[in-house]
Amino acid sequence: MKIYRYPERNSWPELVKRPVFERKELSGLIAEIFEAVEKGGDTALIDFNKKFDKAVTPQITVSEAEFEKAEQEVSADLKKAIQQAKENISKFHAAQIPETEKIETLKGVVCWRENRAVEKVGIYIPGGTAPLFSTVLMLAVPAQLAGCREIILCTPPDANGNINPAILYTARLCGITRVFKTGGAQAIAAMTLGTESISKVYKIFGPGNQYVVAAKEYAQNYGVAIDMPAGPSEVLVIADQQAVPEFCAADLLSQAEHGSDSQVVFIADEFKIFTETIEAVEKQVKKLPRNEMASKALDHSLFILTDSIEKALEFSNLYAPEHLILALGDFEKYIPMIENAGSVFLGNYSCESAGDYASGTNHTLPTNTYARNYSGVSLDSFVKKITFQHLSKEGLKKIGKAIEIMAEAEGLIAHKNAVSIRLK
Amino acid sequence: MKIYRYPERNSWPELVKRPVFERKELSGLIAEIFEAVEKGGDTALIDFNKKFDKAVTPQITVSEAEFEKAEQEVSADLKKAIQQAKENISKFHAAQIPETEKIETLKGVVCWRENRAVEKVGIYIPGGTAPLFSTVLMLAVPAQLAGCREIILCTPPDANGNINPAILYTARLCGITRVFKTGGAQAIAAMTLGTESISKVYKIFGPGNQYVVAAKEYAQNYGVAIDMPAGPSEVLVIADQQAVPEFCAADLLSQAEHGSDSQVVFIADEFKIFTETIEAVEKQVKKLPRNEMASKALDHSLFILTDSIEKALEFSNLYAPEHLILALGDFEKYIPMIENAGSVFLGNYSCESAGDYASGTNHTLPTNTYARNYSGVSLDSFVKKITFQHLSKEGLKKIGKAIEIMAEAEGLIAHKNAVSIRLK
Repeated sequence: MKIYRYPERNSWPELVKRPVFERKELSGLIAEIFEAVEKGGDTALIDFNKKFDKAVTPQITVSEAEFEKAEQEVSADLKKAIQQAKENISKFHAAQIPETEKIETLKGVVCWRENRAVEKVGIYIPGGTAPLFSTVLMLAVPAQLAGCREIILCTPPDANGNINPAILYTARLCGITRVFKTGGAQAIAAMTLGTESISKVYKIFGPGNQYVVAAKEYAQNYGVAIDMPAGPSEVLVIADQQAVPEFCAADLLSQAEHGSDSQVVFIADEFKIFTETIEAVEKQVKKLPRNEMASKALDHSLFILTDSIEKALEFSNLYAPEHLILALGDFEKYIPMIENAGSVFLGNYSCESAGDYASGTNHTLPTNTYARNYSGVSLDSFVKKITFQHLSKEGLKKIGKAIEIMAEAEGLIAHKNAVSIRLK
Repeated sequence: MKIYRYPERNSWPELVKRPVFERKELSGLIAEIFEAVEKGGDTALIDFNKKFDKAVTPQITVSEAEFEKAEQEVSADLKKAIQQAKENISKFHAAQIPETEKIETLKGVVCWRENRAVEKVGIYIPGGTAPLFSTVLMLAVPAQLAGCREIILCTPPDANGNINPAILYTARLCGITRVFKTGGAQAIAAMTLGTESISKVYKIFGPGNQYVVAAKEYAQNYGVAIDMPAGPSEVLVIADQQAVPEFCAADLLSQAEHGSDSQVVFIADEFKIFTETIEAVEKQVKKLPRNEMASKALDHSLFILTDSIEKALEFSNLYAPEHLILALGDFEKYIPMIENAGSVFLGNYSCESAGDYASGTNHTLPTNTYARNYSGVSLDSFVKKITFQHLSKEGLKKIGKAIEIMAEAEGLIAHKNAVSIRLK
């Protein structure tokens, strides 16, 4: 832990800095993988499964039998939990579907926007230590609600060539039946370029390791869009004397257990809460199965004692955390001060894991200072907003003159003509 | 013109292809420019003005005196036209400010989104043959409405070291008083890295030549966001027998005059309209001051005769045009079929130049097939949507079990603990 008591403002820019990852080194490898997938298609993916995941996968497409087996393997309790989470996520994201409002900017000039789903989307779900079926919910639910016509999902197989049953169960629950056994940069390449089994998509979503992140960036060279740039996960907790140290500690640790590069920040305006939270963290971390990872994350965590909640929020805005927890008695007062954050958790009972799984908000959020300029994933991420306009002859008459004058002043005479010829 | 009569569907993927620009060659040059700006600051920008724009600019910051001079130089007519356009653009974009709707996903679990402006934004306005003060409106109006705290504008000086007065007038009309004389990749570098006069921004907007486009992509390596990837401007016009050939021709030419790389596509389902439009284009183009540019664009334009409007729309969806004009009698019927387009113009009096200048919709739109996966600029482009959630103790009790089960199944025990410790 790095402990700072009343750090001067001029030290803040140094404190909010995130670790720098050198991605350029990966670009050669990523280019090679894209080339191999472009040439070899499914065969290349099968080879990569052997090479990187030690998995024998004669078919990369998950079969109906595999879906059914998964359905049987997931416990009834887990199914019920996933269904409940899906319901809440659906409810929150469905409310994001806007009604079309036609605006008459002038009599006879009517403008509006309509949502259209991104037709083809690809979801990447990482393998590794945690089978992130919750991320399937967070991406598949809004994709379905938006009306995306093709939704495919790629995830790496385990050493036996299988996909975690909870991932398959959740995918099918959300209407996704095209799931492919491929992971890492090669999965991103496959969704970008297409193979015999996997169709090209227009937008790729989902988290992953540095190879996946680099491959998503690389995919953009092919005209594919991505959800957002990525970095390690983050939480910033602001606590006052009404906070509960054990709760704060548990939240900080639920971030720390994600990985050794997780970013954990705690700010309190009171010495007692500050020290008691540090003690609670030290006590709780010992009992975690992922103790080693969490401890490494804690090594570079920030614990800051400050003299006011206002100042804590000012620091938070500069930091722009992915998750911001306001463990404050009077949290409502501070909401308007929040400028940069991915998702905000209010009060003592809004733990981050509620939003990670089941409250309804999305857990795919901007990290690495991107909360300054990006939103988290929402229904908006799966649609384009197309503008429409209809001008009547009378409408064009009303603004025609203005258009002609402006077009001429910009030296664009054909633009002017398009009006003049209609008003002749 | 490239004329196709009833082209087979299997030829479409070839027809919708856009020209490929090799950007990698620029990356060395862009890196050098960024380095020069990082080291030299304002002095580097002054040097670049001399080198690239042949302009002597002792100060890069536009002075109050220059704003006032510009105010006097813009004609009363043009001022009035710009004001009218601003009013319509404001009206349309103000309607995009959402009301906060709190969603109770379960009793005691309340989730919502709030808009927060991107605090610092930079607008780039190109110099060159057309002084795009209309683009100042399209970017500054929503930035102001969104509540961006710092809005700066960079644009290259002319050979006398001056900025076009209409650009300065429009900037100040929209509340932008920090305008800097710098263009090209160096302007993007300055807004990314900051100099003595120019402050770093979080998001950069605006069109430009290949250097500007490459520099905006490069800027993303520094954590800056950009409005969208870019390519040459495009229009696709679909006409039936109720269209007016002269109007269609004028619209096609108002796209063609943008530059020799402009993309112009015309589709009709009737031979008479088809040939008459081609004739009208040939006749009108001769009279244009930018005849040479427009003719070059026409050389690679597509004129397609098809057997139904449905098929024309299918082609259009594959093409994903920046601007789509439905010169159709029965346009309302076809709106639901539109999947991919930046902005749509309906009927015989909705010319593209209306949207380019004054109807109220934004003219910063996705090109180069990006209408498949990106929206045009809107108020949304200047805000982040932050999610908030508040769980009461009762709310957490209701979903606590589901969270615990899911967290455990993902192997994230600290996530589970954050709930358990609160419900103990």
